[in-house]
Amino acid sequence: MEFLKSITAKEARQAIQTFPINLKTETIGIDDAQGRVLAEDIIAGDTIPPFTRSLVDGYAVKAKDVQGAKETSPAFLNLKGEVRIGEEALITISAGDCVYVSTGSMVPEGSDAIVMQEQARRVPEAVEITKAVFQGENICYAGEDIRKGVTIIRKGKRITPFDAGVFAALGVASIPVYKQPKIALISSGDEIVGIDETPPLGKVRDINRYAVSALMVKSGAQITFLGLAKDSIADIMEKLLPAQDYDMILISGGSSKGERDFITASIEKLGGEIIFHGIAIKPGKPTIFGRLFGKPIFGLPGHPTSCAMVTVCFVLPLVRRFQGDAEAEEKTTEGVLAANVPSSYGIEEYTRVTLEKTDAGYQAMPVFSKSSLISSLARADGYIIVPERTEGLEKGEKVEVHFF
Amino acid sequence: MEFLKSITAKEARQAIQTFPINLKTETIGIDDAQGRVLAEDIIAGDTIPPFTRSLVDGYAVKAKDVQGAKETSPAFLNLKGEVRIGEEALITISAGDCVYVSTGSMVPEGSDAIVMQEQARRVPEAVEITKAVFQGENICYAGEDIRKGVTIIRKGKRITPFDAGVFAALGVASIPVYKQPKIALISSGDEIVGIDETPPLGKVRDINRYAVSALMVKSGAQITFLGLAKDSIADIMEKLLPAQDYDMILISGGSSKGERDFITASIEKLGGEIIFHGIAIKPGKPTIFGRLFGKPIFGLPGHPTSCAMVTVCFVLPLVRRFQGDAEAEEKTTEGVLAANVPSSYGIEEYTRVTLEKTDAGYQAMPVFSKSSLISSLARADGYIIVPERTEGLEKGEKVEVHFF
Repeated sequence: MEFLKSITAKEARQAIQTFPINLKTETIGIDDAQGRVLAEDIIAGDTIPPFTRSLVDGYAVKAKDVQGAKETSPAFLNLKGEVRIGEEALITISAGDCVYVSTGSMVPEGSDAIVMQEQARRVPEAVEITKAVFQGENICYAGEDIRKGVTIIRKGKRITPFDAGVFAALGVASIPVYKQPKIALISSGDEIVGIDETPPLGKVRDINRYAVSALMVKSGAQITFLGLAKDSIADIMEKLLPAQDYDMILISGGSSKGERDFITASIEKLGGEIIFHGIAIKPGKPTIFGRLFGKPIFGLPGHPTSCAMVTVCFVLPLVRRFQGDAEAEEKTTEGVLAANVPSSYGIEEYTRVTLEKTDAGYQAMPVFSKSSLISSLARADGYIIVPERTEGLEKGEKVEVHFF
Repeated sequence: MEFLKSITAKEARQAIQTFPINLKTETIGIDDAQGRVLAEDIIAGDTIPPFTRSLVDGYAVKAKDVQGAKETSPAFLNLKGEVRIGEEALITISAGDCVYVSTGSMVPEGSDAIVMQEQARRVPEAVEITKAVFQGENICYAGEDIRKGVTIIRKGKRITPFDAGVFAALGVASIPVYKQPKIALISSGDEIVGIDETPPLGKVRDINRYAVSALMVKSGAQITFLGLAKDSIADIMEKLLPAQDYDMILISGGSSKGERDFITASIEKLGGEIIFHGIAIKPGKPTIFGRLFGKPIFGLPGHPTSCAMVTVCFVLPLVRRFQGDAEAEEKTTEGVLAANVPSSYGIEEYTRVTLEKTDAGYQAMPVFSKSSLISSLARADGYIIVPERTEGLEKGEKVEVHFF
């Protein structure tokens, strides 16, 4: 296959990652923030906890008053009262005093440690302490969790459930996030029919529409399907026109060179440009990337496995960039190859693997299949990257497995 | 601390995993199926691909006709026409014939291999083939992806984007899935105020509501917040009553023994029962599990880190069971401990770690913090489990890191 502008995987990543995009932001409620990406640093407006708290149920004391206390020679302290949970501590502790506190109670002035109630006994008007405590024991000091004024969560972080907890602690109920990119998806090809149809001989159902849509949804993008185009410049152009209202455009199909030519011609006729056409990768070689209406556009290969792998390896990083995801690090695990993986020198290959947990860690078993087979992909747990400058990997080699 | 029914982590897991629940199912559209769990086996109603297809642009031939063909001694074949993509192949190939096909075209009867067009030259009324092909080369046979009648995706699988591709290939547009469990959440504690309030001294904002909600949403449950209860049996009972319409009940709070007693008393007064109260774990010891209105109910510890870790380690497995998730295997990676982790014999500990990728794999750095600190949790990438029967793990040991 010849391509006008065929490039290496590294060059393709470079072209995609430097494509100029505009990040848009919005403010959403804390309950909707899970998985979104923070668009501003969150600076603590409060000290958390706002006051010094007890970590246990017991007696607030001065640590030096119970020095050396033990079961056989307890310390005796005056019980000056109780700080109930949720109340301000109005009592002050002087030498020889103690105050009953609950877990979470405010620690009274003058106390520097809490004796657990299991290590104390109430006696009339006093408390016997049967174990010494060190200064600060069983106490969480004001500001120990978060200090007012510090940047507690940075812009670009994908918000986790625990970040929501931090927002709640600080009373931050409205969260500035990057907007989810709006992505237009078109399927193309005379051989493609909708999934509600029984394909006549020679035609197949539209697999890529659903696999790509689900990948986009899973990655936090909003996907709109703009229709199925026939292999004609007029029809593809008609389907591409409404795509100008979106942040990114994906057109799948183009299994054959003829079909791809319709796609590139349509992009150019609409005033767009082809940035590259063809990547030295497998599967996914006939991938197109360009600019249309100022937006990035991908022409995804027609073979379902190729289409899915190119979406995972090349489209998703751009989807994450649109979300301002500065971390964007994929989850990977280390595995040991359970079989040889042959590969062509000069081609970066993506080999799907299934993972099996063994006592010696993960075994990664390559799933060999033709690039048209979607069922093999559904069985895989992840994939490994076989670098360009190698003729393959050997059984027993350590590999980094990228989870899907 | 004394508990009425304190048990080991293993016993707790056992009690939770054997709690009888009813799985409910529903049918949803393929576009909504991402991340849901399949409630029925999907049996292929079609053969995929439905016909034998070409994997390249080129010439459909009989392999034996081009045996030994090379650049210097090409084979000459009659060009009998073309099978366009999307069309039924009506031509039949006899010895000495070839037919032009595109990638994805139906392979004509009589052909058993495709020569790539780069290895062929058109000459008047014939084609010169400059390279031999083996039988089956560049062909995807009918049924090679999916055979009609086989169980292609099993009940209990969490649906991935690639599964959506398989459904599409088979024309399965309505997907039988387990319903997302409906979970009621209540916060409790006199010391807790809403996040829109500035807490007076002695009180703190409700962190657990938001962290637990987000964990539920992320895990595919539907969460409804039923309100913030004061530390009184009457108030807790009032908040618990509407929870009978849900599949599972979570009540967070209960930092102190006094608070927990209100929760257990409320459950019992409403006719429920306490299955266990207290687990030999850290953090999260004062966890309550019981049955109320026939549904599982958790009393989650008040300390934010304890609450979050108990939710992750004990509540989420039950959330997954409600979704019929038979796979339910967590994503883990292997790491090397970057510091000693002391631990108490007899207690199963959950130590939060941050991960750093090095040439030698992941370094897992323990995040030591008091169980009341939410900010430390937001910084962690995952956690390790320090088993019950050990006094800790040593720097340099290999550990399994569970991702959050």
